[in-house]
Amino acid sequence: MSEESLEGNCLVAQSGGPTAVINASVAGVVGEALNHPCIEEIYGGLNGVLGILQEDLIDLAEESQQNVRGLRYTPASALGTCRFKLSKEEDYERVLEVFQAHDIRYFFYIGGNDSQDTADKISKLAADKGHEMRVIGIPKTIDNDLVGTDHTPGYGSVIKYVSTVVRECALDHEAMGRHDLVSIIEVMGRSAGWIAAGATLAKRRDVPKDPPHLIYLPEKTFSREKFLEDIQKVLKKERHCLIVAGEGLRDTEGNFLGAGKSKDDFGHAQLGGVGDYLAALVEENLAVKARSSKLGTGQRAAAHCASQTDNDEAFLCGQAAVRAAIAGETDKMVTLVRGEGEPYACETGLVSLSEVANGVKEIPESWIAEDGVSMNYQFIKYAQPLIQGEVEVPHANGLPEYVRLNKKRVRRLLDKYVPES
Amino acid sequence: MSEESLEGNCLVAQSGGPTAVINASVAGVVGEALNHPCIEEIYGGLNGVLGILQEDLIDLAEESQQNVRGLRYTPASALGTCRFKLSKEEDYERVLEVFQAHDIRYFFYIGGNDSQDTADKISKLAADKGHEMRVIGIPKTIDNDLVGTDHTPGYGSVIKYVSTVVRECALDHEAMGRHDLVSIIEVMGRSAGWIAAGATLAKRRDVPKDPPHLIYLPEKTFSREKFLEDIQKVLKKERHCLIVAGEGLRDTEGNFLGAGKSKDDFGHAQLGGVGDYLAALVEENLAVKARSSKLGTGQRAAAHCASQTDNDEAFLCGQAAVRAAIAGETDKMVTLVRGEGEPYACETGLVSLSEVANGVKEIPESWIAEDGVSMNYQFIKYAQPLIQGEVEVPHANGLPEYVRLNKKRVRRLLDKYVPES
Repeated sequence: MSEESLEGNCLVAQSGGPTAVINASVAGVVGEALNHPCIEEIYGGLNGVLGILQEDLIDLAEESQQNVRGLRYTPASALGTCRFKLSKEEDYERVLEVFQAHDIRYFFYIGGNDSQDTADKISKLAADKGHEMRVIGIPKTIDNDLVGTDHTPGYGSVIKYVSTVVRECALDHEAMGRHDLVSIIEVMGRSAGWIAAGATLAKRRDVPKDPPHLIYLPEKTFSREKFLEDIQKVLKKERHCLIVAGEGLRDTEGNFLGAGKSKDDFGHAQLGGVGDYLAALVEENLAVKARSSKLGTGQRAAAHCASQTDNDEAFLCGQAAVRAAIAGETDKMVTLVRGEGEPYACETGLVSLSEVANGVKEIPESWIAEDGVSMNYQFIKYAQPLIQGEVEVPHANGLPEYVRLNKKRVRRLLDKYVPES
Repeated sequence: MSEESLEGNCLVAQSGGPTAVINASVAGVVGEALNHPCIEEIYGGLNGVLGILQEDLIDLAEESQQNVRGLRYTPASALGTCRFKLSKEEDYERVLEVFQAHDIRYFFYIGGNDSQDTADKISKLAADKGHEMRVIGIPKTIDNDLVGTDHTPGYGSVIKYVSTVVRECALDHEAMGRHDLVSIIEVMGRSAGWIAAGATLAKRRDVPKDPPHLIYLPEKTFSREKFLEDIQKVLKKERHCLIVAGEGLRDTEGNFLGAGKSKDDFGHAQLGGVGDYLAALVEENLAVKARSSKLGTGQRAAAHCASQTDNDEAFLCGQAAVRAAIAGETDKMVTLVRGEGEPYACETGLVSLSEVANGVKEIPESWIAEDGVSMNYQFIKYAQPLIQGEVEVPHANGLPEYVRLNKKRVRRLLDKYVPES
């Protein structure tokens, strides 16, 4: 940890799937960077590492105050993002070349585990090649599956939205007064069921029989028989059965339920058929109607229903990344560290990038109730504080008014580079 | 129109699919009924006509002020609803018997066209049998397909929510920076495309190229070839293609898309609705990725994103129904009458129930652009005012806090009656 002041420019970029609060982290970086005279220019890399490879940099200091303020409540990745995975040696070297050309001494990469892995490798390469710089990762993912941090910015907002939708659907279903409606809400979560689990917050605290009646997590192997039994048990007692299912459910052979054929750029199977699959299963096997909803992309971009706590923490992580870098830290990711006891309090910490890279944090087995389809008190205690407070989004003409950056390009200094995908 | 004061009890009930603002109409009825001493008891019928048949009545005057205030922002049907269609003569006679037993002289039925038809028949039967009473319908439907009214309460809120989701998804898709992503958002609307059309409001006023890029309405016969061409045109110019599709799209043979059980057409099971069907069509025929979302029940219950204008009008319709009945009107439905010129203003009117019953208001052909997949200025001028203003929903513990009525039952006076469904 070098304590001497490092002079140069800073670069912030976003990677992976957008969230409702990832731009709040950019706002945190920009705001804090302005406080430190050793940071000269504040650049943004467009479309994650892809933009860095292509020398697509913008001057964030040129953005209006209004735009930077607007990043606090604008969803998705204002700098653009990518799912491009750096793998070739020449790609890594190109990144370093760009950093050297633009005197990038501070690099902040906002993303999930793949992105923290990339940041880790860039950091190590820079050290090897003698380019002194500080690389700090900023956590981001609605999936909440990053290790080393209590939770990730983005998670609180997605579960606030999903729980709101579940609570509203519950009232709708109750009103229909039927005894034979099964409704499935499919939510994101490829390998971990954190989002589906979070829907449990829709239950009123003192009414445990409230929907969601059943929650299916990718952590648990899906059994047709148990699924149909679970539903029948609920229908015996309640007027309808509202189910939340994570998209990444797998059968006993490890196949994704309802999976399509296509794969994303990291080779992960593209999912999204679980809700329809389960609805068909119900209608074919039980004499009841079944409906499904698929919240899709909207759930990770639902800034109109974002958590103020989540938003504040995303901003804080951006600020903390800059402060850590200035203090001489490098090759670390900012973490959220929950205080012990009540009321909920959270501060930031640091963890080695290599510890985070490619790890996956699963829901502790002990937080899942014995029935396998509901969450117990430990989970609720964990998740409840993360959805507190409502972000006030300015509206114009009846709709949220989000900002788009002006993106004034930084002049290119290098030859063109075409990364092979 | 009888001008003499009619003394007796009033009954309000809700029917058909819930909306985000249907309870605001109940609040309007209750609030206004309290102003008129000729109305003695204020009853609510549970689960629409089904509850009336079964003499399931509650005393709304016994509900707390807090609960009645809470109806202003609580989605779905607080009184419960049904899709039961009165058809048998004995059912109609039972309704009248219940009205006579409980001295119901004012009946307010909140619903869509089926419900207005029911109200019409009840009203005529009461007149035939010499039970003096006033029957006023209150319009309600997210589908906006009721004739005789400029628009229906419930519509403004659903399109505000859908447009918000589209605007947020648009930012997400832009951020992904791809050139080959097609995204389909399936919205409600079996026979009329008002909801899908309303998504056009997501475009910023001065940015016509904003998503939704393509809108598919049930009013237009779906053509595979045109669909694929439409998308290719968009992808040539934009970085992605965001589509909004009404669930009730039909092919040239009149079959609903995605309703078929065939699993062979596109290589995998067609379990879902229109969104999945269209996504499969794209992936199968164009070398691009396609994703779909299905907003499902949540869209009609999304009080967390309701329109204040819509909410105010729903309340106003409830009040106007009571005033009309007190003034001696009967066998009418309250309508919303838009003032001419700007700014937008709306007052209530009345129309014969028989004119409304079972009619369907389609989108004027001239409001659909020539390309068949976008809305022109007349539609936008029509729809824009309906989403203005945000309803403030009280939150507790991070989620909207909606009310449930206490439902103090009115003592039954008649023998049990079991309607045949």
